[in-house]
Amino acid sequence: MAPTRPEAVSTASTESLHQLPSGAQTPAAEVPSRAGSPLGFHIPSLPGSRAASPTATPGSSRPPSPLLRAMTNLSMSQNKQRKEGGQDGSDDETDKEGDDGEKERRPSLGESLSRKGSLKAPLPRRGSSPALAPFLAKYDEFTGSPSGKLEKICVIGSGSWGTALARLAAQNAAEKDGFDEEVRFWVRQREIPGKGLLTDIINETHENARYLPEMKLPENLVAVPSLTECVKGATLIVFCVPHQFLPPVIKELSQPGVLEKGARAISAIKGIDVDVKTAEIYTYPSIIEKKLRLPCSALGGANIALEVANEEFCETTIGCPGPEDCALWEAVFSTAMFRVHAVEDVAGVSLSGALKNVVALAAGFVDGLKMGGNTKAAIIRIGLLEMSAFTLEFFPSASAHTFSHHSAGVADLITTSFGGRNRKCAEAFVTSGKTFDELEKELLNGQKLQGVATAEEIYAFLKARERLDGYPLFTKVYQICKREISPEAIFEGI
Amino acid sequence: MAPTRPEAVSTASTESLHQLPSGAQTPAAEVPSRAGSPLGFHIPSLPGSRAASPTATPGSSRPPSPLLRAMTNLSMSQNKQRKEGGQDGSDDETDKEGDDGEKERRPSLGESLSRKGSLKAPLPRRGSSPALAPFLAKYDEFTGSPSGKLEKICVIGSGSWGTALARLAAQNAAEKDGFDEEVRFWVRQREIPGKGLLTDIINETHENARYLPEMKLPENLVAVPSLTECVKGATLIVFCVPHQFLPPVIKELSQPGVLEKGARAISAIKGIDVDVKTAEIYTYPSIIEKKLRLPCSALGGANIALEVANEEFCETTIGCPGPEDCALWEAVFSTAMFRVHAVEDVAGVSLSGALKNVVALAAGFVDGLKMGGNTKAAIIRIGLLEMSAFTLEFFPSASAHTFSHHSAGVADLITTSFGGRNRKCAEAFVTSGKTFDELEKELLNGQKLQGVATAEEIYAFLKARERLDGYPLFTKVYQICKREISPEAIFEGI
Repeated sequence: MAPTRPEAVSTASTESLHQLPSGAQTPAAEVPSRAGSPLGFHIPSLPGSRAASPTATPGSSRPPSPLLRAMTNLSMSQNKQRKEGGQDGSDDETDKEGDDGEKERRPSLGESLSRKGSLKAPLPRRGSSPALAPFLAKYDEFTGSPSGKLEKICVIGSGSWGTALARLAAQNAAEKDGFDEEVRFWVRQREIPGKGLLTDIINETHENARYLPEMKLPENLVAVPSLTECVKGATLIVFCVPHQFLPPVIKELSQPGVLEKGARAISAIKGIDVDVKTAEIYTYPSIIEKKLRLPCSALGGANIALEVANEEFCETTIGCPGPEDCALWEAVFSTAMFRVHAVEDVAGVSLSGALKNVVALAAGFVDGLKMGGNTKAAIIRIGLLEMSAFTLEFFPSASAHTFSHHSAGVADLITTSFGGRNRKCAEAFVTSGKTFDELEKELLNGQKLQGVATAEEIYAFLKARERLDGYPLFTKVYQICKREISPEAIFEGI
Repeated sequence: MAPTRPEAVSTASTESLHQLPSGAQTPAAEVPSRAGSPLGFHIPSLPGSRAASPTATPGSSRPPSPLLRAMTNLSMSQNKQRKEGGQDGSDDETDKEGDDGEKERRPSLGESLSRKGSLKAPLPRRGSSPALAPFLAKYDEFTGSPSGKLEKICVIGSGSWGTALARLAAQNAAEKDGFDEEVRFWVRQREIPGKGLLTDIINETHENARYLPEMKLPENLVAVPSLTECVKGATLIVFCVPHQFLPPVIKELSQPGVLEKGARAISAIKGIDVDVKTAEIYTYPSIIEKKLRLPCSALGGANIALEVANEEFCETTIGCPGPEDCALWEAVFSTAMFRVHAVEDVAGVSLSGALKNVVALAAGFVDGLKMGGNTKAAIIRIGLLEMSAFTLEFFPSASAHTFSHHSAGVADLITTSFGGRNRKCAEAFVTSGKTFDELEKELLNGQKLQGVATAEEIYAFLKARERLDGYPLFTKVYQICKREISPEAIFEGI
């Protein structure tokens, strides 16, 4: 289950994440090809199944493409989870089959992801606006493992977002074929006075009382105190730790024999890593990929953790290095109320999640200045453009559509600029006159605001590249944070 | 000043605005070319002045392009208005000239738009994010009239937005060269008991107490009760009446001799016009253009009238049929705090202004359902995509960038979805269970919600075209408005 991996990087420093091999600026384009299908399952391609023209695609009355039919299957099997084991109506009962003969043929996406043991025929897809179709990555079916080997999911992180993602993954692992039912998440052990060990409490009460209180967790989601034990045998690893905790995690995982061969990763870590000396910038997926030799996707979107856990309708974007990852990670996280859209743009999704916090600070400054809706919308629009331009300039493999069309871009920015804590603290920064250090202590219980850290990283990087003049809003946010200029100066030159 | 115009359409019905000549679906592409420069001034082109690559353009340290220099001049001359006639610093004093010799050569954009009688040299542009540059229309310099004839502005409409636009135009007409200082706006005459005639009151107090109270209007802005008198000699006509008042306005203006030859128009009217029988859809600029033979631009953006009048920082987008219109209308409206960006996309700007109100209803339904920020951002994102897809499908000359990058698109949608009255009434529609007719009486003093009317028009049009399935959000908004489905059903199939 955990073979030695002599090729794994075992010398990862906890201090120098950015010491990557040269040429690492375009992580999405650098994923090693996996032509030999090391994942233990073969994913057939669907050539020509993705319509190219926006006007031709949306909801025409033509027969659906193979891809759309595959999407239909997936979506309906998810909707089915909400119902109490009843029979759904079906457009095409001729496809209905039992479990018999499944091993002899390649199961369809709908079959492999349907409620375990109750395969159903395709139904009309519910839940993807046709207008989005032209901007989704072309992806192929997740067919499960022909060898019978199941995908095993591990979530590294137990904060509110890590727990919410682990909850979704555990729900899907229990419901869909192709997955080992047990999902593990890594919880730092501690003694809760008078109550016992934290992992024991979580595993007995099925609640993460600290970060996601009053939210029942699935019983197949297991808290594990040892990181090495947690990832043992895992083929799908979700990274959701605060970025400052990533170096020790990478150090432990890069020891020989810890990671399952052929495992894949996804990062929900917000932020970027800048090496000022070399004037290089790195995303966390690119760091995970290089340090651990895992193909790494990125997850981002308008995803306030508690709302996701409460199963309020929302969307997320998964940026993947290739079509197999798109199909697989969509299967891991997608539910009827948590809509996953996959794009082949790791850098775009990752950068958007980092940069949006800088723009949210700007939106907070506007709120603090008591400006109105026109002004805030203008700042958000300009910020979105700078996010996109920055990413395209320094990560040329990224797609502008990730910012303009997807949840990870425009939607996440809207949510963060109206409801996030970066916005909130930035407003208080203007109205109270306090420093961000003070506000973090007062309002965030000492937690650091990601937007301020990212603004500093971006400023240092742009300065090192002599490109500050290309990003006046980013530059001004940094200068305002440092009280080098007044908040009102944000409107000059943008 | 007002020659007879035998070619003008004089039979405009007040009822059938959509009875246009066939083939009018793509208004932006159908503007008659004005090769003979009927406007009385020549506008030189600036070939190759627009950078094409997003990564090459933003704020590099290269010398600015001729276009950017032109933009610099414009912006600085506007900033100058805020100062009390003092001398600005200048990067290039060698260009400094007095009034002498102006008629002998073509004045630069900066010169022609600078404070009257105090021409200055180019200064670094302040106020346009470099990230936007690749998405702005290529436009040419507004050089004023070589013949000495001044542009004369008339605003048709005296509601809050019409008055705010008239105020901006009057400020610029007073400050910039090339314009007749007097700007007229059309105010329907009425007797205010004990106070006299409304136009007299406005012209004496310089306030529009009814629609823009406590806002001082420039003294060169003159209220005129007669529409024919108001447009007399006007070369630039701003349409800003509620759309239901447009037919009689067009009827009056289409009489021979009313309009100045070579005049141009711009529409700030929100909404669309659908002819269900022929399954055709028309924008108001296309109607104005066809009925009155005026080249017609469109103005839209995140522009809450009172905030604009209060000179809070905001942006707008002007969609124009050609580069001359871009330069001219930008000169009419642009100030330091009201940033105008021009694009050659009349249909996109016009459609965006109409369709955003439909999406704002959806956002209001989400608020009424007490859903959170994730859900609202998802609805806004999906709505933006449908707005863009709809426009591109039925107005192929439009640009997707108008929606994804410009104030008229994403920014206007954000403002409207968080602060507008469509959102407000839609929230109350869910929480109170009342009809929109009732809510319009209660909350809007009987005024009709544009979103509801537009949703009905769009639904009828899509149904006639058999394209409802391509636009599930638009369709559901209509169905919810009619109480055909519950508000919760909005999440199904989008």
